[in-house]
Amino acid sequence: MDAAGELRLIPLRDFPLVEKDDDLATLTVAALARTGLTMVSNDVLVFAQKVVSKAEGRRINLANVVPSARALVVARTVEKDPRLVELILRESVRVVRCTKDVLIVEHRLGFTMANAGIDQSNLADPTLGEFALLLPEAPDASAERLRNRLGSLTGCAPGIVISDSFGRPWRTGTVGVAIGCAGFPATLDLRGEADLFGRPLRVTVVGHADEVAAAASIVMGQASEAQPVVLVRGLSSRFSHQPATALLRPPEQDLFR
Amino acid sequence: MDAAGELRLIPLRDFPLVEKDDDLATLTVAALARTGLTMVSNDVLVFAQKVVSKAEGRRINLANVVPSARALVVARTVEKDPRLVELILRESVRVVRCTKDVLIVEHRLGFTMANAGIDQSNLADPTLGEFALLLPEAPDASAERLRNRLGSLTGCAPGIVISDSFGRPWRTGTVGVAIGCAGFPATLDLRGEADLFGRPLRVTVVGHADEVAAAASIVMGQASEAQPVVLVRGLSSRFSHQPATALLRPPEQDLFR
Repeated sequence: MDAAGELRLIPLRDFPLVEKDDDLATLTVAALARTGLTMVSNDVLVFAQKVVSKAEGRRINLANVVPSARALVVARTVEKDPRLVELILRESVRVVRCTKDVLIVEHRLGFTMANAGIDQSNLADPTLGEFALLLPEAPDASAERLRNRLGSLTGCAPGIVISDSFGRPWRTGTVGVAIGCAGFPATLDLRGEADLFGRPLRVTVVGHADEVAAAASIVMGQASEAQPVVLVRGLSSRFSHQPATALLRPPEQDLFR
Repeated sequence: MDAAGELRLIPLRDFPLVEKDDDLATLTVAALARTGLTMVSNDVLVFAQKVVSKAEGRRINLANVVPSARALVVARTVEKDPRLVELILRESVRVVRCTKDVLIVEHRLGFTMANAGIDQSNLADPTLGEFALLLPEAPDASAERLRNRLGSLTGCAPGIVISDSFGRPWRTGTVGVAIGCAGFPATLDLRGEADLFGRPLRVTVVGHADEVAAAASIVMGQASEAQPVVLVRGLSSRFSHQPATALLRPPEQDLFR
């Protein structure tokens, strides 16, 4: 029996490599069964961004990318493949910082992140060419679709978080964050709540889905994609819906643009 | 039985309110017993910063703080209590950003954070006066002491993480981060590891202790201190020791100073 208040993070067993047009929900139902799990109310499934992007066909062959003049200039500064830089710029609305090995942009979805979230690992045998994987077109919508489809297949629609690994200013190392959310509150707003002595709380908004993504990242691992889907059981969050866009700090409150 | 690769986060039951000079390790052993837990190899205990600071007597009565001229100037900008600003400046080596309601500093320990981590909730009945709680003097050393003392008391020295909640640039909401670490790797360095196809990994350093702190934060909750200590079971990390200072990005790699 679970201890009171216990949170469990259970990686789904033997999740297959995902290809374009795969039905992630069906793959997930099979993996839940393999892991011996039946979903219950308040369960949340965290999906690594990579499997969502792959299923949505967001893999690009760099051989088909022609870098613009601007991409060539930026590529010289950052010392990256100009075709990759071209993709990064296409996915972005603004370059935030740009120096050797570092290209931090504001992604069209609002995320401030390195390389527009474009990744090149686990995509294909290198003898087949060079590939890159973009973020899903609209991760909150991807999460909503996964939630609805899982609800249809199992009768129990879980909360969904789509996670990615972001670097941070000031701190070394990446941590899992939420880029998509459905049936789940991206943030918890504690404004109006009081401490043990009735004093209003200093910390008023918690990046709840980011904390859930970070927790799932621990069991997903990084080196392989063997565990890209993690069941989170035991969350007591009121399951209000709030998309991951709620995690974006409004520009007027952002002192580090 | 735990599922393979499962991670469990178990809050210790009925942890008492902590006072100056309390022996946190002894309180923890009692709380582990209450929760029905016996520590095993690779267990990690996450302590909320607040209980460590309280045990170490880091609570300050604002009535005893005389603001400096500089604190008075900064207090006018940020519109905070000048005595609180005085404490923040004493704990800091540099003001990073300063505007109405916002005072982000570089703490003497290296953390870039709001208000030097000084908190005012859950400290005392407001009729007794106004109090503030500083970070532990040296959180990595606090973690090491807790680990050694728990090792002596139980025969099994757990990994220790001391956690706090930090805001972030660009993203709304706070997340748990590690400010102290012992018997536990603050970061995981994957440099040299390869993806499924033999390609070197893009993400090479993971903020491991930060992810563990974020995960623990989910079950700690924010509004009360009823669950300030969380047992994390199932980590497969090689238990090399690396202090939380490893999570500080070197200034020469920091583009957001």
